[in-house]
Amino acid sequence: MAKNYSFGAGIWMFGQFIDRYATDAYGPPVSTLEAIDRAGAVGDLMCLDINIPFSDPSITTTQVKEALKRNNLKAIAITPAIYSREFRSGSFTNPDPKIRKKTFELAKQAIEVAHELGAKYVKFWPGQDGYDYPFQVDHAQLWDLAVSGIRQVAEFSPKTQFAIEYKTKEPRVHISFSTAARTLLGIQEMGVNNVGIVMDFGHSLFAKETPADALQLIHKHGKLVSVEVNDNWREWDDDLAVGSIHVIETLEFLYALRQIKWKGPILLDQFPFREDTVGAALASIRSVRALDRLLDRIDLKALRAAHKNQDALAAQRLVQSVLLGSSE
Amino acid sequence: MAKNYSFGAGIWMFGQFIDRYATDAYGPPVSTLEAIDRAGAVGDLMCLDINIPFSDPSITTTQVKEALKRNNLKAIAITPAIYSREFRSGSFTNPDPKIRKKTFELAKQAIEVAHELGAKYVKFWPGQDGYDYPFQVDHAQLWDLAVSGIRQVAEFSPKTQFAIEYKTKEPRVHISFSTAARTLLGIQEMGVNNVGIVMDFGHSLFAKETPADALQLIHKHGKLVSVEVNDNWREWDDDLAVGSIHVIETLEFLYALRQIKWKGPILLDQFPFREDTVGAALASIRSVRALDRLLDRIDLKALRAAHKNQDALAAQRLVQSVLLGSSE
Amino acid sequence: MAKNYSFGAGIWMFGQFIDRYATDAYGPPVSTLEAIDRAGAVGDLMCLDINIPFSDPSITTTQVKEALKRNNLKAIAITPAIYSREFRSGSFTNPDPKIRKKTFELAKQAIEVAHELGAKYVKFWPGQDGYDYPFQVDHAQLWDLAVSGIRQVAEFSPKTQFAIEYKTKEPRVHISFSTAARTLLGIQEMGVNNVGIVMDFGHSLFAKETPADALQLIHKHGKLVSVEVNDNWREWDDDLAVGSIHVIETLEFLYALRQIKWKGPILLDQFPFREDTVGAALASIRSVRALDRLLDRIDLKALRAAHKNQDALAAQRLVQSVLLGSSE
Amino acid sequence: MAKNYSFGAGIWMFGQFIDRYATDAYGPPVSTLEAIDRAGAVGDLMCLDINIPFSDPSITTTQVKEALKRNNLKAIAITPAIYSREFRSGSFTNPDPKIRKKTFELAKQAIEVAHELGAKYVKFWPGQDGYDYPFQVDHAQLWDLAVSGIRQVAEFSPKTQFAIEYKTKEPRVHISFSTAARTLLGIQEMGVNNVGIVMDFGHSLFAKETPADALQLIHKHGKLVSVEVNDNWREWDDDLAVGSIHVIETLEFLYALRQIKWKGPILLDQFPFREDTVGAALASIRSVRALDRLLDRIDLKALRAAHKNQDALAAQRLVQSVLLGSSE
Repeated sequence: MAKNYSFGAGIWMFGQFIDRYATDAYGPPVSTLEAIDRAGAVGDLMCLDINIPFSDPSITTTQVKEALKRNNLKAIAITPAIYSREFRSGSFTNPDPKIRKKTFELAKQAIEVAHELGAKYVKFWPGQDGYDYPFQVDHAQLWDLAVSGIRQVAEFSPKTQFAIEYKTKEPRVHISFSTAARTLLGIQEMGVNNVGIVMDFGHSLFAKETPADALQLIHKHGKLVSVEVNDNWREWDDDLAVGSIHVIETLEFLYALRQIKWKGPILLDQFPFREDTVGAALASIRSVRALDRLLDRIDLKALRAAHKNQDALAAQRLVQSVLLGSSE
Repeated sequence: MAKNYSFGAGIWMFGQFIDRYATDAYGPPVSTLEAIDRAGAVGDLMCLDINIPFSDPSITTTQVKEALKRNNLKAIAITPAIYSREFRSGSFTNPDPKIRKKTFELAKQAIEVAHELGAKYVKFWPGQDGYDYPFQVDHAQLWDLAVSGIRQVAEFSPKTQFAIEYKTKEPRVHISFSTAARTLLGIQEMGVNNVGIVMDFGHSLFAKETPADALQLIHKHGKLVSVEVNDNWREWDDDLAVGSIHVIETLEFLYALRQIKWKGPILLDQFPFREDTVGAALASIRSVRALDRLLDRIDLKALRAAHKNQDALAAQRLVQSVLLGSSE
Repeated sequence: MAKNYSFGAGIWMFGQFIDRYATDAYGPPVSTLEAIDRAGAVGDLMCLDINIPFSDPSITTTQVKEALKRNNLKAIAITPAIYSREFRSGSFTNPDPKIRKKTFELAKQAIEVAHELGAKYVKFWPGQDGYDYPFQVDHAQLWDLAVSGIRQVAEFSPKTQFAIEYKTKEPRVHISFSTAARTLLGIQEMGVNNVGIVMDFGHSLFAKETPADALQLIHKHGKLVSVEVNDNWREWDDDLAVGSIHVIETLEFLYALRQIKWKGPILLDQFPFREDTVGAALASIRSVRALDRLLDRIDLKALRAAHKNQDALAAQRLVQSVLLGSSE
Repeated sequence: MAKNYSFGAGIWMFGQFIDRYATDAYGPPVSTLEAIDRAGAVGDLMCLDINIPFSDPSITTTQVKEALKRNNLKAIAITPAIYSREFRSGSFTNPDPKIRKKTFELAKQAIEVAHELGAKYVKFWPGQDGYDYPFQVDHAQLWDLAVSGIRQVAEFSPKTQFAIEYKTKEPRVHISFSTAARTLLGIQEMGVNNVGIVMDFGHSLFAKETPADALQLIHKHGKLVSVEVNDNWREWDDDLAVGSIHVIETLEFLYALRQIKWKGPILLDQFPFREDTVGAALASIRSVRALDRLLDRIDLKALRAAHKNQDALAAQRLVQSVLLGSSE
């Protein structure tokens, strides 16, 4: 059976997890190189989104390149960790110009590493950019910092493809690039053409979007750079295995990916705090493949007719006929 | 193939829908007798939960009985409309003793009609009992009214089975009987043994419960009287067709029903504002049956082992193997 | 003491309320003319947003004009009821071209009435435009209908100011124009310059926005046409009295209104289901005035310094010093 | 002016914060003894809720006692860290009996330390007890483990006062003791009389309760052991400074504390990730005191009359008259 998509993952899902309660972490430390080996152990991943700085200052890009090679992996993206301690009060939007400069410097490093590793894009996930309290910020100023900070990087390296991964909150209580529409507006305000969006399925659910709908909006504006998948309970970025909760909406999202002729890869973004990471990755790949195969069996002509009539029950019946089997 | 459950419905789903915007209603008026005929047209319903007062004061219980008979339907429950205009500021918890007395009188009528129609329980859905604003009520007083009002009815007719359908809000912004646990506490405080719970799957999702979990809690306390099903987006009581969104959680709920050996019936509670009502009812019945049949194919021994280990990925794989088919 | 703002209201808040449970309504019917008289009874309103069609086909625009005059009121906006029964499956996005045409015709009537009554804008609140179920619609098609439908009206009457009031849901389970950012994107796609936004404070809370932030975004894009206020519990459009819950965020919103030099009016949008409407309106006006006066006493220079540093505790202390009084 | 309450705090708010993104933590490590000194620096705290194990195995209870003494602090509670790495899949509900035994052992240590330090209660915050995925657990089994695990400890040391701090989620995606009502039911099932509840204001908001209402329910059942305060945006346990968002609901909660004649102390539970901890603690104490003083000025007789009538607007006016000042 044809495999429509190749898969990748964020390297963080193979690292050490920690949170504010299990401060001794959910497992032992994992170096960047070890994480790449773990990703390789999945056996079905083609590429990684890799964080810089690497886990240890002594690790070189050459070592990372070798680790990728021995695991048959490529770097698809470089994501600078603009959310660690020094950026705790913001990266691009930090009130301190020195930290904003450090953000820019780290972005430059990310561009270099991306170039060395042949990555397709540099991802910004400005999870500390925003605010916690009412009245904490002048919202117009904050938004200007968010927009101009990324514009500056994009103008510095006009041939690099950048992408913003939006998220409504966490760790910052309110994050500036919160939704697909708001991020599209921000990108327009930047006035550059090398900044797009990484759409994370779970962040879209969390932002109370319908992922299939957010996808078409981003695509329509020509800004879709990459796609990440996982699942959650809709009220937090739980980063669970794909299809574990929102089966129908994941299926609808995969249908939307077909509509825009997405050729992949699809990246996993999970935090299996209490599960085997490799097993959790395989579970997600299995779910995506199985759901995608269901689409082959849906009567798409009938579905398009149902869509033309916005006929919810007809569409549901078509979906259930392949998901639940015939009921007669 | 064995049909494990018989089905019933709330009569309101065959009536006229209205809301605060489409004040000319989503369709023409429907009398109680017409609604029974529509329910009969589904062809697969065995019983109805019937509201009193009937749509028109001239309709008699005898006529209702005849309408039920000609449609092969029974009355399983009588639900007094303690949420209409005169109860807009509360029924059992209304600050005005005259309205509380009217609530009691309407409850008495419900008992009589239930007796005449052979219904198994009288349902209270005190959707106007609660508060809208901070500081509006003395919460201890309000809770006392909620508890003592139903206790009074239960003591008045100790041989009648009563049931409270909890819901977190709507139409009241905060409803007193909001969750399974809180309602169980209230029933305990009543100190009577003829009041139980009607558990509505959608209300449970809306209350941020996991329905399968709420079910076991109610069952453990011996208070499960009836079960209603539908679906929603988890943030409002959308009353959509069963299985349209929460496929996995509906399946888990059906599994929980098997665990407690529920013999049915299962009642539909939908508001198909924009769909054909009979079609919407049939869609739900089809979903329940198809999902329930999937349970026949799950390796239950393996599932129990996964549960013993609380192994999320193993359990998910068992479920997906029947839902999505083999992925290898 | 200076009164910074004049006030208006949506005429609907003086009408008859109904919902899907209290189907006999929360009070007796109210005609358009009676509603205007009730609005006049508030004594502190200057203008109304008026729905068409009027409550009764026999009511003429001339009668409405007279009713406004005798109550010292003006029409600030005309809002066609594109959410009544015939539009239950959509107005601009209805799958049936005949209904889309009816939407256009009703919009044309709204333009005419706006002209006759001297209203400043025609408001579209397309509360039925969207979808209820996963897989119900082709999201790209739906969005195209939403955008092109309003574009068509805007191009038909280029001298009329139009405004979209966004809302995330209700009555439609998902509404196309859901958030400030998404609506701004839609307006851009229209390519016209006579469509803006009516920002409703409660809809912004409901959409999980921070209202002060949404305001600056709309203002920055030059699209703020009008402002409506109320309060809710953040998870539904409860339409409660201003300042009853979100005191701090209402204050921050009023601060943002000062920053953009909003000259008013401020419109009330409430549904006092269980309260006296005139009293509820007065409560809101009192809250806005009292909160706005507090701003006169905040040390704005110190607040701007706190904002420059994004210093949450400093800002909070400044706000609390006027709200709660000195604590030393 | 009379100070109605003394204040305490959870020692964790003076420790090192970390989360899953800023894995290098929001600041340097802080030992148990240093945290006590920081708490002492607030100057207005009387007691601490202290975690065991202490930060370093070499720290002795005697050293902790001395540190408390030199800072004029007492231990009010001991909270065993039953949510660290080894308990990541559950403490009382862990599927592995060896870990459940370790939980019991750690609870015994907590009892000993509580005895040595003269603490009033041992608190259980079983933040890892629950589930992440649908179908992961047998809900009846899980609940039994949750109830019986704490029962076992309570029966082991019948003279020790225990208290459960409920929370709806985090770190576990669903926590067993999630709401006030559910925890009360669980305590009843335990059949012991030395287990009560620590009510955290923020957890109550997060659980979609109205805190003043949850307080009366816990009090009515005689199970209120302690009270913790903070604030959040209602959708996560943000642990922000008191009164920063929910001014009205905090005031209502303080009113409810007066109604039940709570004599304190009131404990702070904050995570000032990006603020000065001592400053954040002082801000909260200031807010509680200022809000509590407002209660002295509210016309309580009129408020009780408003409550008797459930008159929202009258109650709101009484509250606003002291909060916002006279508006006439």
